Amino acid sequence: MARNMALDTSNITKNEAVEIACNTLAAIREKSPLVLNFTNTVVQPITANLLLAIGASPAMLSDGSEAEDMLRICANALLINVGTLSRAQSEEMEKAVAAAAKNSVPWVLDPVAVGLLGLRTNFVKKILAAGTPPALVRGNASEILATAGYEAKTRGAESTCGSESAIEAGKQLARKTGGAVLVTGETDFVTDGDKIAALGNGDIMMTRVTGVGCAMGALSAACVAVAETPFAGGVASALIMGIAGNIAAERCRGSGSFAVELLDAMYNLSESDIHSRAIVRE
Amino acid sequence: MARNMALDTSNITKNEAVEIACNTLAAIREKSPLVLNFTNTVVQPITANLLLAIGASPAMLSDGSEAEDMLRICANALLINVGTLSRAQSEEMEKAVAAAAKNSVPWVLDPVAVGLLGLRTNFVKKILAAGTPPALVRGNASEILATAGYEAKTRGAESTCGSESAIEAGKQLARKTGGAVLVTGETDFVTDGDKIAALGNGDIMMTRVTGVGCAMGALSAACVAVAETPFAGGVASALIMGIAGNIAAERCRGSGSFAVELLDAMYNLSESDIHSRAIVRE
Amino acid sequence: MARNMALDTSNITKNEAVEIACNTLAAIREKSPLVLNFTNTVVQPITANLLLAIGASPAMLSDGSEAEDMLRICANALLINVGTLSRAQSEEMEKAVAAAAKNSVPWVLDPVAVGLLGLRTNFVKKILAAGTPPALVRGNASEILATAGYEAKTRGAESTCGSESAIEAGKQLARKTGGAVLVTGETDFVTDGDKIAALGNGDIMMTRVTGVGCAMGALSAACVAVAETPFAGGVASALIMGIAGNIAAERCRGSGSFAVELLDAMYNLSESDIHSRAIVRE
Repeated sequence: MARNMALDTSNITKNEAVEIACNTLAAIREKSPLVLNFTNTVVQPITANLLLAIGASPAMLSDGSEAEDMLRICANALLINVGTLSRAQSEEMEKAVAAAAKNSVPWVLDPVAVGLLGLRTNFVKKILAAGTPPALVRGNASEILATAGYEAKTRGAESTCGSESAIEAGKQLARKTGGAVLVTGETDFVTDGDKIAALGNGDIMMTRVTGVGCAMGALSAACVAVAETPFAGGVASALIMGIAGNIAAERCRGSGSFAVELLDAMYNLSESDIHSRAIVRE
Repeated sequence: MARNMALDTSNITKNEAVEIACNTLAAIREKSPLVLNFTNTVVQPITANLLLAIGASPAMLSDGSEAEDMLRICANALLINVGTLSRAQSEEMEKAVAAAAKNSVPWVLDPVAVGLLGLRTNFVKKILAAGTPPALVRGNASEILATAGYEAKTRGAESTCGSESAIEAGKQLARKTGGAVLVTGETDFVTDGDKIAALGNGDIMMTRVTGVGCAMGALSAACVAVAETPFAGGVASALIMGIAGNIAAERCRGSGSFAVELLDAMYNLSESDIHSRAIVRE
Repeated sequence: MARNMALDTSNITKNEAVEIACNTLAAIREKSPLVLNFTNTVVQPITANLLLAIGASPAMLSDGSEAEDMLRICANALLINVGTLSRAQSEEMEKAVAAAAKNSVPWVLDPVAVGLLGLRTNFVKKILAAGTPPALVRGNASEILATAGYEAKTRGAESTCGSESAIEAGKQLARKTGGAVLVTGETDFVTDGDKIAALGNGDIMMTRVTGVGCAMGALSAACVAVAETPFAGGVASALIMGIAGNIAAERCRGSGSFAVELLDAMYNLSESDIHSRAIVRE
């Protein structure tokens, strides 16, 4: 089975992954990296609240020239999420990506529904072709396949195939960008084009609250801002998000309380939670 | 009293209404209809979360050409809510409505504050005059009166008159569109221009959380996507929303926890809840 | 210490401040003032929900001509918050501010990140120079310093200096506008250019949920709509918000539940809570 093959491919041990996640969590809380988000309007509140819960500092702007100001002065990472892209927004995002490159601020791409919808698919091609590539790309299998140039189909923001089906595409994409790729799904895969980590935390409830995946893109930007490598940032964000999701799923009574518990779990997340709960497919 | 007359006008029995709601709930959970929402920015999170809680699949876009992509490929219903309408957004919405018609996807209109504010009042006239009419219109009494061409006054998003005052206007509007009209208020009325259903669930707390009414418009789009008729979709959405509201009101400690409990109640809603709690004015 | 000097400067007694807050709370619940918000997209839900929780009536629009309609017909206060300002939005806001002046509707300015980012800094200069000044300006120390024309630095939406450092700037700004200025921070200061009130409620958890400060700007607009003076409105909003924050902080288990508890506390806030909890630095 494709899935089991993938499960055998982790090139880091559980101990290594846990250490990465613990160090990244501590660094976020110590440094409070400022993550500038150009993201879709649906998920702005949960994205900002998740970053605040973990100890990072969120900022959201509409205007590209203001993004240039912020990326020059104080931003530590930039997130580009194309979930509700408009032609006007795509122009502001281009300015932001160029300013990130100019100021050596790492940026993360979340190619929501790329492959399904035309405007964003062309936009993502364009920003990947021009200038500095993203430190990390986060998407579900369909989105990573499409972003890497494969044929793929998505249905709205959902993937119609398992995350393991995009491992090869993720590797190719990571080699092309020189950064990392995080394929999210029942198992989350992180690759830098060479190494792979397969991380098994998380819960199906995470798909019943809008913006959990998008907020994970923002979390991965915070992780990339403080981690030694984009690969380490991706591993940390998948473990931190998945473990907080597991804790919240145990405590919730439905999808409304799940969203509240997820933020509380993130706020209270300890290194001991990471040690005792991390699932790394070695 | 106008109100009591209205209460006598239901043309379906409680048993029929309950069966419609149970069947619609089961169909949403089985088919997970994809509802594309062009809605106001204030209520996007609760709208998406309510659709996810009930088992539907929400999508939100800004760009009209992307809406055309999605309506051609995978959307099962379209919601147009004019709550924060801009000239630019109205153009994208027109593309979406045309694409819905072209692809035989039913659409729902939520004419927020129509009759009070000029831009949206003109826009709603325009999309009702051109092309395929909406399968369902959801609004409070003031909005339905104004959408049907009557003089009416709204105060912000609130109605200044009881829902029963818009029954005749709702009937006329439904005859004109060939679809159904849902007038929400203390009693919710659904009509297809001929039959009327008067549904009495719901709680005053639903007016203390932003977007509950707008999210109900999206819920009615999900119901219309799977129900046999727009009238059945309207009946189902009024009962499902009202009963979830009753459950949440019993459990909350204020308006903050009401919003959480509403999503939990929607997530856990059972056919037995519908049977035991439905209030149908026969 | 600068801080202690400030603490000695309150020109109203605790009893006076408490009476103002109790009267304002009662008036909001009785009159349900309609607050029209042109605010940033991140905080729209919590802003609307906080206004609903306290008993006010929120409205949010995108289009300036619709704002003119609403300010002519039914709005009792206008909030201008520049958190996600775009060039397009700034034009609509100018129309709204002009319409507020024309219809004698008081307006409140929340100069988010002014001083750090160029577009909004120029926009705020422009609307302060033209026409009717705001009844109240709410900001953290950095924002008030920059709005008053001092050099200041902000980091994202956070202030990098204590609220007491902006008292003199706040006084000058209030003399210039003829209204009041509310400097928020660990201690909140309100001034009308002459009198100062120093209010000590609130909790650090309020900085871990996005939009609490921005929602406080909207709350202050509701207070200004019903209070005898902008200064009284500012005092009331600082006490109401701070006390609700104290209650929520005692009950929450993290930043997710804090947001829920904050709305519940606001919904249930009593005059007796204000009497027993108010902290006024006399």
